[in-house]
Amino acid sequence: MGVNRQVLLDNRPTGAVTRENFRIVESPLPAPADGEVLVRNEWLSLDPYMRGRMSDAKSYVKPVQVGEVMVGQTVGEVVASRHPAFHKADKVLSQLGWQAYGVAKGQDLHMVDTSQVPASYYLGILGMPGLTAWFGLLELAKPKAGETVVVSAATGAVGSVVGQLAKAKGCRAVGIAGGREKCDYAVRELGFDACIDHRAGKLHDDLKAACPKGIDVDFENVGGPVLDTVLRQMNLFGRITICGLIAEYNATEPYAYKSMRAILVNRIRMQGMIVFDWKDRYPEALADLGSRVAGGQLKYRESIVEGLDNAPQGLIDLLAGKNFGKQLVKLR
Amino acid sequence: MGVNRQVLLDNRPTGAVTRENFRIVESPLPAPADGEVLVRNEWLSLDPYMRGRMSDAKSYVKPVQVGEVMVGQTVGEVVASRHPAFHKADKVLSQLGWQAYGVAKGQDLHMVDTSQVPASYYLGILGMPGLTAWFGLLELAKPKAGETVVVSAATGAVGSVVGQLAKAKGCRAVGIAGGREKCDYAVRELGFDACIDHRAGKLHDDLKAACPKGIDVDFENVGGPVLDTVLRQMNLFGRITICGLIAEYNATEPYAYKSMRAILVNRIRMQGMIVFDWKDRYPEALADLGSRVAGGQLKYRESIVEGLDNAPQGLIDLLAGKNFGKQLVKLR
Repeated sequence: MGVNRQVLLDNRPTGAVTRENFRIVESPLPAPADGEVLVRNEWLSLDPYMRGRMSDAKSYVKPVQVGEVMVGQTVGEVVASRHPAFHKADKVLSQLGWQAYGVAKGQDLHMVDTSQVPASYYLGILGMPGLTAWFGLLELAKPKAGETVVVSAATGAVGSVVGQLAKAKGCRAVGIAGGREKCDYAVRELGFDACIDHRAGKLHDDLKAACPKGIDVDFENVGGPVLDTVLRQMNLFGRITICGLIAEYNATEPYAYKSMRAILVNRIRMQGMIVFDWKDRYPEALADLGSRVAGGQLKYRESIVEGLDNAPQGLIDLLAGKNFGKQLVKLR
Repeated sequence: MGVNRQVLLDNRPTGAVTRENFRIVESPLPAPADGEVLVRNEWLSLDPYMRGRMSDAKSYVKPVQVGEVMVGQTVGEVVASRHPAFHKADKVLSQLGWQAYGVAKGQDLHMVDTSQVPASYYLGILGMPGLTAWFGLLELAKPKAGETVVVSAATGAVGSVVGQLAKAKGCRAVGIAGGREKCDYAVRELGFDACIDHRAGKLHDDLKAACPKGIDVDFENVGGPVLDTVLRQMNLFGRITICGLIAEYNATEPYAYKSMRAILVNRIRMQGMIVFDWKDRYPEALADLGSRVAGGQLKYRESIVEGLDNAPQGLIDLLAGKNFGKQLVKLR
């Protein structure tokens, strides 16, 4: 039999993640038991939430234990199946994590249709990030035509979908991103009305200029000073979806927010979200996202790292905002 | 004609309010024009929102201008009327502010029925504070039987109603108040399951002990370190109604909240509120509150300052949490 390759959590980071937090090992190829399937992973998704799983602070799910394979969603191909619903060469979505091969129970796998879209899309625009954008914007923030929607990490896997859906709803879409190149892409390719480079160091003034009628909806992926600044420009009855606080993930001390009073004064509704809470309604959202992708109304960009051994650096770069679009690791 | 007596905003406070921010003047008794009514105020309500009106920072309504009569709700008696709906000796609710007499347009007055309840109740449990508790708890936070509801400023005009309504809904009601005496009152008289004295300096541990199943609903009147501590003990899908942030009102610098991440991790919904947003539904809430008061299910306590000249000190004490129950000024 062959050999598997895995990235383990070797020790927990203090502050920023480093390559030394990971350990790459080889191990025997696992064999599927009855009801199980052996999958060869082709694409691994890298996502900001992974930083949370590396710590042992209380979060929505259990952390990865030291010595365990790093958690992550993958798309792969069935190599051997002992489950009646899966056959060799089927393409499946799984939670097999940072490894070349993995064994999963049949009920934990989802067949994906790669006849119309690339397999990798199921990790992005037609996967968790796309669903997050769809439910967080349309179900929680409920933007109305003519309103101003701000989204941070605007060119990321979630933010890029948020901005395009906001435009489709007739809103003014204003992105916040790191660097001129990303901002240009958000406006020229994704159709944002404006995009602010927070690295330019004058977020407050730039937001004022880009949102002359104030901010009605904030889809927050970043947190920290970005959220604190946005809060002060929110309109009456504004809605904030807290999807991520990536600015805090690597910090050893939580950011201290000074604009809570805006929530009272402007009767703002702020709501934290995790996409899993809408599991029952994924098909509805995927049908809508799928038709928008097929119709060319939703543009999508991937940022690809080659090879499992480069996954740690890929995550480090993602957390530093160096990715440009949905971050993936190509495993073969 | 007689003489009126008024408390004016003399200058804006920096930090804590002082008596020197006010000026007491005498002026000629105003005469009602056609469609107007002259009212002799009997009770003046003191409320934390008044601190906001003394500053010129952006808020939900315009600030009081320097030299103007301080804003406030009153209950009084009609002395002279040039409006067909009002007659001498009618009792009315008005926005006449900190003065002995005032003239109002008929449409700005509300007749109150003092045959069943004291006139002062219309400034408290059957007025803005009672309505605030009713909508903020039942409409925004929507507590379910068996859940744990925390309310700060628990013996105040709003908090005491929140706690009693929560108990009526079958919840565990946990108050936070300043001082042993208030806490004893909350538990023994108002029926809270527990009440924590935040002055004891171990809010986190005391909350843990009083809320063994975590916190599902927080009705926030205080903000600052109290809210920051509560946030860290909120349960999944918790709801926070931001009704007041009295801890910040006197501060020159806003409090810096460090627990934003809890909102994401636990999918908390935090919502700012002002009771005016439910104006159309006041009758429904007042009917419910009225029947609970009449039936003895809602207990209520007033804290009374004698005389208009003591109103400034009354507000100063209210902002320092020295009141015990709904703060009123008895004007005659």
